[in-house]
Amino acid sequence: MIILGIDPGLALMGYGVIETNGIKHRLIQYGVLSTVANSPMPQRLRSIFAGVNQLMDIYSPDDVAFEELFFAKNVTTGMAVSAARGVALVAAAQRTENLFEYTPMQIKQAITGYGKADKHQMQQMVKLLLNMDEIAKPDDAADALAVAITHANSMNMKNLYKIK
Amino acid sequence: MIILGIDPGLALMGYGVIETNGIKHRLIQYGVLSTVANSPMPQRLRSIFAGVNQLMDIYSPDDVAFEELFFAKNVTTGMAVSAARGVALVAAAQRTENLFEYTPMQIKQAITGYGKADKHQMQQMVKLLLNMDEIAKPDDAADALAVAITHANSMNMKNLYKIK
Repeated sequence: MIILGIDPGLALMGYGVIETNGIKHRLIQYGVLSTVANSPMPQRLRSIFAGVNQLMDIYSPDDVAFEELFFAKNVTTGMAVSAARGVALVAAAQRTENLFEYTPMQIKQAITGYGKADKHQMQQMVKLLLNMDEIAKPDDAADALAVAITHANSMNMKNLYKIK
Repeated sequence: MIILGIDPGLALMGYGVIETNGIKHRLIQYGVLSTVANSPMPQRLRSIFAGVNQLMDIYSPDDVAFEELFFAKNVTTGMAVSAARGVALVAAAQRTENLFEYTPMQIKQAITGYGKADKHQMQQMVKLLLNMDEIAKPDDAADALAVAITHANSMNMKNLYKIK
């Protein structure tokens, strides 16, 4: 099955696509959807909507896994990211009902076996698990691959994490 | 010209449609898009997206005016409303670039001449300004009509309030 992982953001939304049988994972693609900081909010959201639609078109993922938002210290940023995430959810929901969500701690636990692993450890494990030559960049893309792997590793209990 | 006013919300999103020449306003329609509280978030957002698309189809508004979010005391609610607003923005932005935003205080000032008017005063003025037999219900719909009238009344300076 194909899994699309998404790390929600307004300026940079990371994505990672993997194929998995539940045990072995294969990297298909990763990257970021980026929006220009000084362009109007509606245009930025539109471009995220179009970008996620395109990812759904190209990769036809069976499941889509989102990294859960953790609370931004800056409330304005939190609202902007919530809007971006909402738009990405709608784009994904138009194609599949299989939408899942994992907290940063669940992702760290799934990837490294340790809920407080640091960014570097995470990125190294993602590289190893997907048999990559280098770590994925930027960080948002590596995070998106991590959430995709997390979902692949928890497929037998996946309904627990379905977005409510 | 036709103005669509929107009061963003996840459970209830108010909308109000008016026609105006900048001086006199005519009520076209008002109501709410509602989503079921215990249905999954992606479905709720999808239904808002579909609903706003439908409003854009039916009324082809020249301009769309949003009430700006004020900060919810409950952060989770704030994030849900931000997501709903983001989705509504994208639906509107696919048809027009003329998207505007007004704070609750700007709206009160525009409708009643007093930035701290209460809900009842506001609803009475909306009824009067649109020559309605009764006040608009529910509150979300009355708020949406108020933001539409606010926009109609500030057309000569409207670029000031364009959503950035």
